[in-house]
Amino acid sequence: MFRINENFLNLKEGYLFAEVARRRAAYEAAHPGADIISLGIGDVTLPLAPAVVSALAEASAMMGRAETFRGYGDYEGEAFLRGAVARYYNERGVDVGADEIFISDGAKSDIGNILDILGADNAVAIPDPVYPVYVDTNVMAGRRVVFLAANEGNGFLPMPGDGLLADVIYICSPNNPTGAVYNREQLAAWVDYANERGALILFDAAYEAFVRDADLPRSIFEVPGARDCAIEFCSLSKTAGFTGTRCGYTVVPRGLERGGVSLKKLWYRRQSTKYNGTSWIIQRGAAAVFTPEGREQTAANIDYYMGNAAVVADSLRRLGIWFTGGVNSPYIWLKCPGGDSWAFFDRLLAEANVVGTPGAGFGANGEGFLRLTAFGNRENVARAAWRIEKLLGAAA
Amino acid sequence: MFRINENFLNLKEGYLFAEVARRRAAYEAAHPGADIISLGIGDVTLPLAPAVVSALAEASAMMGRAETFRGYGDYEGEAFLRGAVARYYNERGVDVGADEIFISDGAKSDIGNILDILGADNAVAIPDPVYPVYVDTNVMAGRRVVFLAANEGNGFLPMPGDGLLADVIYICSPNNPTGAVYNREQLAAWVDYANERGALILFDAAYEAFVRDADLPRSIFEVPGARDCAIEFCSLSKTAGFTGTRCGYTVVPRGLERGGVSLKKLWYRRQSTKYNGTSWIIQRGAAAVFTPEGREQTAANIDYYMGNAAVVADSLRRLGIWFTGGVNSPYIWLKCPGGDSWAFFDRLLAEANVVGTPGAGFGANGEGFLRLTAFGNRENVARAAWRIEKLLGAAA
Repeated sequence: MFRINENFLNLKEGYLFAEVARRRAAYEAAHPGADIISLGIGDVTLPLAPAVVSALAEASAMMGRAETFRGYGDYEGEAFLRGAVARYYNERGVDVGADEIFISDGAKSDIGNILDILGADNAVAIPDPVYPVYVDTNVMAGRRVVFLAANEGNGFLPMPGDGLLADVIYICSPNNPTGAVYNREQLAAWVDYANERGALILFDAAYEAFVRDADLPRSIFEVPGARDCAIEFCSLSKTAGFTGTRCGYTVVPRGLERGGVSLKKLWYRRQSTKYNGTSWIIQRGAAAVFTPEGREQTAANIDYYMGNAAVVADSLRRLGIWFTGGVNSPYIWLKCPGGDSWAFFDRLLAEANVVGTPGAGFGANGEGFLRLTAFGNRENVARAAWRIEKLLGAAA
Repeated sequence: MFRINENFLNLKEGYLFAEVARRRAAYEAAHPGADIISLGIGDVTLPLAPAVVSALAEASAMMGRAETFRGYGDYEGEAFLRGAVARYYNERGVDVGADEIFISDGAKSDIGNILDILGADNAVAIPDPVYPVYVDTNVMAGRRVVFLAANEGNGFLPMPGDGLLADVIYICSPNNPTGAVYNREQLAAWVDYANERGALILFDAAYEAFVRDADLPRSIFEVPGARDCAIEFCSLSKTAGFTGTRCGYTVVPRGLERGGVSLKKLWYRRQSTKYNGTSWIIQRGAAAVFTPEGREQTAANIDYYMGNAAVVADSLRRLGIWFTGGVNSPYIWLKCPGGDSWAFFDRLLAEANVVGTPGAGFGANGEGFLRLTAFGNRENVARAAWRIEKLLGAAA
């Protein structure tokens, strides 16, 4: 008699976005024709850059000709793309080699799958509020999770405190959902903690391209000592609009080991056994992101999103509402004026016809906060921001 | 102090193809200019079908326009592709619904990842010889594996025997590496065994498109009762030359459950947490495989490969060498005349300048056998077959 993995029964239902959609639909049913604007969307909206589209089209055509057809590729990704990613780090002075880069179909897959190479008995520390994948993948594997309280007091940037006994630590900076970004000193404190305890940092850099402040780190590997204790995950989803195109990469330093066993070798063994490489066509498109043309075009898209964030952030500043993010991040995490997350969500929906995402859905410490995103159309973002100002300015 | 998953230390090094490459290189170094032909290649060589290339190019262009751009897709795949796959089953009279189909980046990923939803304490039965992924993914998870002896006596098609106590059973038909194909009665015996014991069959149908004998099953779901005990994995890698393009699918019957928990729901939870969907562009290309035009074009490629297999099989028949496969499969698994796998490999390389794959590399029962494949160029395959006939005919 086969048995299921009963740890799955301990997972919470991922009801957040379903509940948001339900409440919105109920409002629309009761108010036909309401002009609702969503600032809840966590997905990009601008099309792929022309350089990327050209590369995808060319690669597709090459797949149709015997001389240029490609079968199985390297499990860890093609050399042309790994080299391009390494140069992307190196030009910022970050020491990452092409041999340390693993191309995948996205950071989410790698962040989940990396747990395959780690023992089941590790104590895992995860910030709260948080991107739900960190918690759920650990619950599936039956691991112990301790939460790191992120709150107004620490600017939603928890630090290693007294008595924290963690073997594996998740850090996402710029953060989803809070938009908060660790500075160099704060990340250095985490790296020191990890190296002292022999802990492993799993660093999610999916939003690194949104960092504009040159003093803020975009990679954990900008911090001395990180190569001895960290794995970094990154993605082209938000950098280059690849949410539906799918490509990411993971950096495992070649010297990172435990008991003489190289984590890079373990990850290669995992990927070569349970993954067959990223589509060659998509890798060609991804490489175009790192060309001068691709860099310019994708940067323009990020500028557009950051312009959206600034519009919302400026309105919140005028209102005197406390928030994190809005700069160096596409997310704005605001303290709900006089209400819990869902009550404020309902009020925004009913009185401003604006949809956000209740912070309570991201963890216990998210209660009392709401997430707004910068991925929409500028005119709609501006209209939504004005409606919020009008609603809350009048109330204040 | 973080700990690695020590089960990885129990994995055997995947040295087979590396050792083949090493011996070939050594021979070439000693015999410069030798005209070596490889029948060891397990990868397709014909380019993508024109219908697929057109769809990929069109989808790439759509990604570059705001009106047709696609962000995050459905975790389980796009409805257009799931519907096409369902119809592919239905037109053969196989009861599979679009709601039971999960699109992925390939069967290898799913075959590895499916173990996430199964308990660690299942007893796993795996044929020997075998595609190494089945064993390695279970070793990584620390599961007990029992081997089902495949050999000349059972035509490399092991059946459920007395005293077999298995909770999870892997079946690959047409088989890699042996090319052997279970008939309907044999698969029915496995399904009956599984339903009696409450076991789960993981059925690898990656080579189903090579089955030309209408009496042989191409899907486990052609067998009554299979919907109560089986999950099927399939791929466009060999069907449509997608080894470098990456797309596969997994069928989890909606009624398949254990203790009231739906396996389809568990797999959806796994995929939605640790996977972000297959590239929309690639899914558009995959859907073109199932159009009338795509079907005709990909069938022509399979005809070409099967023609290669027939050339090799005919030579072996003339030589009186025992083999499985060669029909209904791109693989030919032959009994090495008077020698072990590696000795015969060396002899073929040195005396016929033909490269095969030693059967011993696929498991203990592979000793004394050699795998040849049909994915090469026809002229080279014919030359290699003639060299083998000349070498072994003279020796016989």
